[in-house]
Parts: sequence; C-alpha cells; structure tokens
Amino acid sequence: MTKQHPALRLKEIQPFRVMELLARAREMEAAGEDIVHMEIGEPDFATPAGVINAVQQQISKGEVHYTPATGMPALRLAISDFYQTRYQCDVNAERIVITPGASGALHLVLASILNPGQSVMMADPGYPCNRNFVRLLEGKTQLVTVDESTEYQLTYDLVKNNWQENTCAVLIASPSNPTGTLIKQDELKAIINFVEQQGAYVIVDEIYHGLIYDNLDYRSDANTALSYSENLFIVNSFSKYFGLTGWRVGWIVAPVNMIRELDKLAQNLYLAAPTPGQYAALVSFSKDNITELDKRRDAFQQRRDYLLPALRDLGFEIPVQPQGAFYLYANIQRYSDNSLKFSEALLQEAKVAITPGLDFGYYQADKYCRIAYTTSLERLKEGVSRLKKYLSDV
Amino acid sequence: MTKQHPALRLKEIQPFRVMELLARAREMEAAGEDIVHMEIGEPDFATPAGVINAVQQQISKGEVHYTPATGMPALRLAISDFYQTRYQCDVNAERIVITPGASGALHLVLASILNPGQSVMMADPGYPCNRNFVRLLEGKTQLVTVDESTEYQLTYDLVKNNWQENTCAVLIASPSNPTGTLIKQDELKAIINFVEQQGAYVIVDEIYHGLIYDNLDYRSDANTALSYSENLFIVNSFSKYFGLTGWRVGWIVAPVNMIRELDKLAQNLYLAAPTPGQYAALVSFSKDNITELDKRRDAFQQRRDYLLPALRDLGFEIPVQPQGAFYLYANIQRYSDNSLKFSEALLQEAKVAITPGLDFGYYQADKYCRIAYTTSLERLKEGVSRLKKYLSDV
Repeated sequence: MTKQHPALRLKEIQPFRVMELLARAREMEAAGEDIVHMEIGEPDFATPAGVINAVQQQISKGEVHYTPATGMPALRLAISDFYQTRYQCDVNAERIVITPGASGALHLVLASILNPGQSVMMADPGYPCNRNFVRLLEGKTQLVTVDESTEYQLTYDLVKNNWQENTCAVLIASPSNPTGTLIKQDELKAIINFVEQQGAYVIVDEIYHGLIYDNLDYRSDANTALSYSENLFIVNSFSKYFGLTGWRVGWIVAPVNMIRELDKLAQNLYLAAPTPGQYAALVSFSKDNITELDKRRDAFQQRRDYLLPALRDLGFEIPVQPQGAFYLYANIQRYSDNSLKFSEALLQEAKVAITPGLDFGYYQADKYCRIAYTTSLERLKEGVSRLKKYLSDV
Repeated sequence: MTKQHPALRLKEIQPFRVMELLARAREMEAAGEDIVHMEIGEPDFATPAGVINAVQQQISKGEVHYTPATGMPALRLAISDFYQTRYQCDVNAERIVITPGASGALHLVLASILNPGQSVMMADPGYPCNRNFVRLLEGKTQLVTVDESTEYQLTYDLVKNNWQENTCAVLIASPSNPTGTLIKQDELKAIINFVEQQGAYVIVDEIYHGLIYDNLDYRSDANTALSYSENLFIVNSFSKYFGLTGWRVGWIVAPVNMIRELDKLAQNLYLAAPTPGQYAALVSFSKDNITELDKRRDAFQQRRDYLLPALRDLGFEIPVQPQGAFYLYANIQRYSDNSLKFSEALLQEAKVAITPGLDFGYYQADKYCRIAYTTSLERLKEGVSRLKKYLSDV
C-alpha cells in the first residue's frame, strides 16, 4: 500500500521563521512575560472610528452578498479618483480589479502571465511570498542580489545584465519590504522601457505607498509607476497606509487587455473580495479619513526618526535611510553572523521580538534582521533600552 | 519586439456562461425589465440580524487585525463542537483550517497534494472551478461521466474502473452542484477505502451540507464523510447553509499530518481569512441562529417541493429527486438540444434567467440546464408561469 503524501512543492515552500518566533512570544506572554514586538508587519492602529461607523451602518440590514468578481464598481471608481487626486494620474476604473488583499492580487497577476518554466526576476532581499506564488505556478524565481549600493532596489543595469530568455516578468517593490527603500524613478522608467521591449511585464508592488516620509513629492520617487506606462501591473493593498489589515482587501491595476483574463481567474480563484472589507475600503477615501491616515503616517515617521539613529548607536549598520514602509533592515554582524540565533536569543533574553533576515532571501541573510516600528514610540524606546542592556552584556 | 501576452493556461480556463447571462439580465433590469432570477448560486436571505448585531458589536472598537493563518482558535473550536453536536463525530479543532470561502479551501487542499501531471478524478457534471484549480496547479482533471443511474454521483465501480496510475485524488461533492443529489454512504465508504489503499486522497465538498431535505438523518446519506475516515479532506463553507456569502469564510478538515503544510500554504496564499467574516461565522453557531437557519432550510425545501413537480409538468426531465443544495438539473431536450441558446432565448423572451449545462462539464451539457431556487416561492411561481407561456408558444 502506497502512503498518502503531500505535494512535492511543499518541500520548497518554507514557513516564515517569524511565525515561530511570534508563537513563542505569545507563549511567553501567556506565561506573564512582557515582550516588545518589533517583528510584526501589521500597523498597530485600529480601524479608524469613521470607517467602523460607516461599515456598521452599511451592513445593518444584513445585505452582505457577493460583489462582482472584479469588485464593487463604486470602489473601483473611488480608487481611480484617488490616483487622480494623489498622483494626478489618469487610471480608468475599468483597469482596476479588487482582490482579497495584496496576496490575492499577486497571485492573480502572476497566474495571468507566468507559464511553467518561465522566470520572474525580483530582488533578494524581498517579500518571501512572492517566490512561493511563483513556485505554486511552476515558474522559476530569479533572485537578483541587491545591497546598499543600489538602496536595495533593482536597477536598469541589474535587470539588463540578469535578463534571460525565459524571463517573463520583473517584480519591483517600492517601498520595499524588508528594507523600506524606494526605487529611483529614473531607474524605474528605464526598467519599464527595457522590459516592455522584451515583451515581458513589470509588476510593481506599491502596497506601502502612502507610508512615505521626508515630505517626498508624489511626483518624485513617491510616484506611482502608473505614471510611466499603461502596460504594467500594479499591486496595492488597503492593509498598510489605509490600515485595514483584517478586512482583506487589495487591488490590481492592469493593462486594459488583461482585465477580462483577470476577471475569469478571479471568478475561479475567490469569486469576489470580502464585501465588508470592500465597504470599509470605499469609505476610506473620505477627506476626514485621509487626514487621519496622514496623521498616522506622520506617527510612523516620528518612530522611524527615533529608531533609526538609536539602532545605529547600538552598532547596527543601516547604511541607507529608509523612506517608506515601517521597517529597518539592519546589519547585525557586529554582534552575530546568525540572524536566526540572534533573534531567538533576543527574544529569550531581552524579551524583544525581531525578524531574522532569513525570511527575506539568501544574500547575507544571516547578517541581517528586520526591525519593525509597528508599535508605539514608548514601546520602541523600551525595546531599544532592553537591546542596549542585552548587547552590552554580550 | 515581442508582444506582451497572457499565460497559456488562460486559454483553457473558460469564463462562466452564467456570468454573461447575469450581466445581460442586469442590463435588462436597468432598462426597466423584470427578470426572474433562477440562475444565481447564492441564497437570497440576508445575513441573520443576530449575526449582524454581534459583528457590529465585535468590530466597534476597530480591532480588526489579522488572525492566525489557520483562523481564530475560537472558531476552529466552534466548528469542532458543531461536528459533535450535529453528527456525533469527533473532529479535533487542530484538524480544522479556516479559509477565505470554499474557493480558498479547494485551492489550498489541491495545492497541498497535487503534483503537476497528476490527475484528480471528479464527476461530470460538477462545479466548474474545480477543474480550473487543477489546471492552475498544472494537474490534469479526469472527468468521469455520471448520469441519473448513479444519481449523478461517483460510485465505487466508477472510481475503480477509471483509476489511473497518476490519479492522486478523487473529489466528491455531496450534495452536488449542479444536481443537488447526495452520494450513497455505502458507495462513499467503499470509495474512501479503495482510494486510501491506492495511497491517494478523497476530498469531499460538503459546502451544501445542512441544506438537506426530506428529514434525512445526519447519520444516513446526510452524514459527513469525516465519520468514515480521518485521512481525507473536507471542504466546507459558511456561504450556503449559514448564508454568509459576501463574508467569504470557509473551512477545511484535514488529516492531522497535513495541518502544518496547509498552514504554510495559507501564510503565503492569503495570510488569513477575513476577520469580520470569522466573527460572523463564530456567532453563527448560537442556538437561536441555528433555529433561524433551519427555518430557512425548510423554506428551501418548500421551494423545491413546488418547483420540482412544476418543472416536470412543463416537460423538463428531472429523473432523480434532488435532496440537497438549491438546484435542479433539468434535461431540456423536449425543447432544445442547445442549452446555451435555450437559456439566452428564455432570458430574452420569457425574462427568466437560468444556467446552461455547459458551465458544469461536457457530458450531455447541451441538453441540460441548472435551475436554482434561490428566490422566493412567489417569484418561482412567476418564473414557472412565464416558462409555461413561453414553452407553449415554442
């Protein structure tokens, strides 16, 4: 009798180390310990009260049915308007597809363009799920090492020099998770131009857009890639700037000729994004709410402005100032060349949780950790104080 | 310059014909026409008021964060209890994984066991997304023709006689969409036994469970397949019996050794099912709500009891009495041998929307239509009266 067994792909899909650290942190908390969480990729803010009130009203009659697979028409329109208001960029609502989070968006986009054996180029370090979506579709991930010399972003030269016959897409994340850095707009334009000439697609992950600091102009490096081409894919989310994590809503902007294909895939893969989340997203564009969200963005900047020099003072190397998202990607080699053991020891001894670089790729991953500022300034200060004490004893 | 183009798989994934019919019906309605909807696979009932109130309360403080990838522990426990209460079946909560709808569940299960080139056996006619999930994972769908002689369900003989070296799973849906029929428990047991001996998996889609009529005993054909094995996968949903369509929550029960693999896939594919939906699901097990849901089930039975003889009187052949779900799968050959044209004509001329058999497979699909009773008895009567008039003129 043959034994039942899991599919082979599962051997190549790693669980996130941070999930195990988080589970251990929760156990320690349950046992009465106080843990400073600097590992979590989720904003600590609650859903804004105005959004909650509007959703409560909206669902009060119980009408929570399926929406069209591409999402509520009113929400697609609101996103279209938002591109106009924020970026002065024309994006027709018909090019927008609402998805169950950016996860659903990434999967849908890749399923629509990637054939088995073809490869998707992306930066190492980068968001780990991207590799796994490619693996699920029997594609190949082509990791391109990036470091501080390019602010941890792909460049035109890197894309051109690493191009292969079977490359079907280049995935760029700006701001990047885990590094928080932005791609230079000149590089982005040159990459788009080159990739489209090859008959391939650029996918730009803009899920941390809006969480961009230092008063960057929305027409400079904080711009959307949509300003430069209509033939690329944008992946975005209501989870970060908009703070609607648990609601699970994201979106795609796609070339107009791909909408019917994405619609077909969405009908099959998930039917429609959750309706309560779409209601929450729809009311998130109100002027009052945007004011509130921009205040939260300022709070993130304040945290970054505190944490960045504090960590540098401790001897962590962070050569590039991250201008977006809520992460610092720190070289810890002064203290350790094993980021997993370092993270485990920090949790155990200093009661501070951070994420080992191993979760984000291979290149020097042992020497880096990702430190998130998704907790209050007070807690960050407490975390830094614990780190200081712990590291001075090492 | 090479042209950007979609992935090849999209040529093999068909849009649902019913979506185009539905879009046309909506256009006609916008132009002032009155359409009787007998095509929609979504219960017409609103979310129960008690569920709405509880969710409004639950989200009032804005705490709508990510849950663990496998779902809220309390919800997994509640489902475990439900198996005990309803079926007297022991299902440990750790074997339960919460998913974004049954779509998310089917995808996750197949991704965890299916290798490229392996095949999944399933009935034709059947739910069309199943084939497309298999296609996305580069597997092969092995459709086995079923007809009224086996009540449109797979049998032990069919499974055994169609078995291939590369068959890695058999997918059974009971009650079935589009036929509403149940699998005989003796056949189910024999299939499970045979398939497990081959080292393959049985997946049972029980998403229409609970919507089962004629006072069937939950320990007869209305039983869950979990009563017969711990090594199979169950896919279920809060969208049908529980009526929570737009909330997008479903679940998997899996062999215990597969939970870690499913957790890993869930972390990558969707992070977590939507939190508002999980709250709605959690409060759906209250005694009051179950009483309300059982009343709705009785309303569905009343509709079936009206519609089945009414359609037979019109000359539609429905040889087997469907005992579950909210569909009748009717042979229309007395009037047409082209179910798509027949559906289009019905919509245009009689203002009644139904779904052509083509959406569900190939076998005699031209001669069948699916007729849903997801609208009120009054509207069903109006629909039948329009059909009668139209068909007497044909």
